[in-house]
Amino acid sequence: MKTACTRPLDVKRGRVDLSHGSGGRATAQLVEELFVRELHNEFLAQGDDGARLPRAAGRLVLATDAHVVSPLFFPGGDIGCLAVHGTINDVAVMGATPLYLAASFVLEEGYPLADLARIVASMARSSREAGVPVVTGDTKVVERGKADGVFITTTGVGILRDNVDCSGAHARPGDVVLLSGPIGDHGSAIMASRENLTFETPIVSDTAALHGLVGELLDAVPQMRAMRDATRGGIAAALNEIARQSAVGMLLEESAITVRAPVEAACELLGLDPLYLANEGKLLAICPPERAEAALAAMRAHPLGGDAAMIGRVQEDAYRFVQMNTRLGGRRIVDWLSGDQLPRIC
Amino acid sequence: MKTACTRPLDVKRGRVDLSHGSGGRATAQLVEELFVRELHNEFLAQGDDGARLPRAAGRLVLATDAHVVSPLFFPGGDIGCLAVHGTINDVAVMGATPLYLAASFVLEEGYPLADLARIVASMARSSREAGVPVVTGDTKVVERGKADGVFITTTGVGILRDNVDCSGAHARPGDVVLLSGPIGDHGSAIMASRENLTFETPIVSDTAALHGLVGELLDAVPQMRAMRDATRGGIAAALNEIARQSAVGMLLEESAITVRAPVEAACELLGLDPLYLANEGKLLAICPPERAEAALAAMRAHPLGGDAAMIGRVQEDAYRFVQMNTRLGGRRIVDWLSGDQLPRIC
Repeated sequence: MKTACTRPLDVKRGRVDLSHGSGGRATAQLVEELFVRELHNEFLAQGDDGARLPRAAGRLVLATDAHVVSPLFFPGGDIGCLAVHGTINDVAVMGATPLYLAASFVLEEGYPLADLARIVASMARSSREAGVPVVTGDTKVVERGKADGVFITTTGVGILRDNVDCSGAHARPGDVVLLSGPIGDHGSAIMASRENLTFETPIVSDTAALHGLVGELLDAVPQMRAMRDATRGGIAAALNEIARQSAVGMLLEESAITVRAPVEAACELLGLDPLYLANEGKLLAICPPERAEAALAAMRAHPLGGDAAMIGRVQEDAYRFVQMNTRLGGRRIVDWLSGDQLPRIC
Repeated sequence: MKTACTRPLDVKRGRVDLSHGSGGRATAQLVEELFVRELHNEFLAQGDDGARLPRAAGRLVLATDAHVVSPLFFPGGDIGCLAVHGTINDVAVMGATPLYLAASFVLEEGYPLADLARIVASMARSSREAGVPVVTGDTKVVERGKADGVFITTTGVGILRDNVDCSGAHARPGDVVLLSGPIGDHGSAIMASRENLTFETPIVSDTAALHGLVGELLDAVPQMRAMRDATRGGIAAALNEIARQSAVGMLLEESAITVRAPVEAACELLGLDPLYLANEGKLLAICPPERAEAALAAMRAHPLGGDAAMIGRVQEDAYRFVQMNTRLGGRRIVDWLSGDQLPRIC
């Protein structure tokens, strides 16, 4: 009667089946032999419907992100580490220290367990490296053709720094716009991977957890007004959001925004604009002008901010336009997403 | 140039398209004109990548649940209220007061905005009724055929009651097993709906938020050992989980477990066992025998616990079997899920 329980999960050759989502023994086995084994920590080990956590010494921040990236594995990462990094970054740019993650999986019947195990191992690695454990989770299975392999929603809990009050609504005319490095790596890596393009220098996603960089930056400049990780829609979308929330305009300098050579080549080939390409490890930070040098120094001292630069200024604008002085000496409006959509980039 | 922005979302006739997940203007419009408008609260209005929340006065609880129920609308509810109730219940049965929800949506291209609006309105209503706001969210869109309409992951944050220490691992021989009402309503409502079965008395899902009932119960009996909402896999799965976590056995009395007549009829027709059918508003509670009467009285005094009953006892068992004295005078083992799987019940 208990034999089904004693046969271990066949992670090498097995596939996700509907019983893995039924809430019965197969679900328990998948959770224990794959998820808990990889992601193990004292909270997950509690084995209840949620995690009991310590008291949080500060105001809470909560952020959630569904991840539906396609392909699930791409140069520089996979949906597993992306789901960890993306939510850590959402919490961090609120001016908070990320503490815990919850992860919920929607799996398609027939998905290879070996690939799922790689994804979970990648989550475990990135969560360990970031010091932010996955403390609770859930798994559902849908019939073949009703999902696309694996979708992962991660939700992050953090605590706000007491002396920081960052929001997209706090940018003011005169503030400076800082960017932590070259743009478009993640979006172009995904696109190149979909189109089977190869370049002399391969394009690799920049997926990374930014909370370390953000922490150093806020230590140096607690007066930071606003931060964003420039994911879907690229720095164009992130800056337009801030412009609208703060009821300001911005003027960027194209010459200050760097794009790696292979990313530039991919953009030309595919007709993409790097301003709109997703990044998964780049920080936009807006701060008062008198703190710009201190902020840049703090960013450049961190491995993920070595190429940090001031890329523009906030200015008054009744129309809340984000504009850009181009390399050729002209000026253009950097509108919200223009041209083609890039679905399932994250 | 800004015209696209001034045309309101066509909620009546419009459909989800890939641009709604692009992170650009269409995403912002969907979020503002549908999600934020319905779910509005001070936290969601912050408009950042996450929500800034007050300091939590207690130990935290975090629980997450993916909802993939099919059909999306069913007698007695829909995926929207289910996603709110399910996660509130997961937090509540940990012995915690649910405070906030995060919601992440995976939408299929082509899904009618009118149906999405109904789902979000249902979430808003149930969240308001429960007093647990949806404070942050995320929306992704996948291509037609890559998801099944709408998947919703909700994540709940709560605070533990200081004087309560409930866990599936705390059941002890001699404890009593209490159940808040008749079983199988949700699971049979979904199955009947899928099979297009109608009964004289319609079967309606029992989806409900249990935190009020749990609160009253814990006020009366803070010594509660373990609680579970008996969702996927029914009370059979929930009790087997507790038996395993606590290294105990259980002996149930079939005569004490009630099943509504139409649910019983549906089970006979479809060959289902109500012990394995999902419930979305039923509480299992395990407490020391000397507190059983007080617990039952507290449950019965609440609208969701009027039919509460003692359905069994915890006992020593090296094999951790959940057994049941049947109505016919026999005894059977109530194993983990047996027979057919019931996919996508929640």
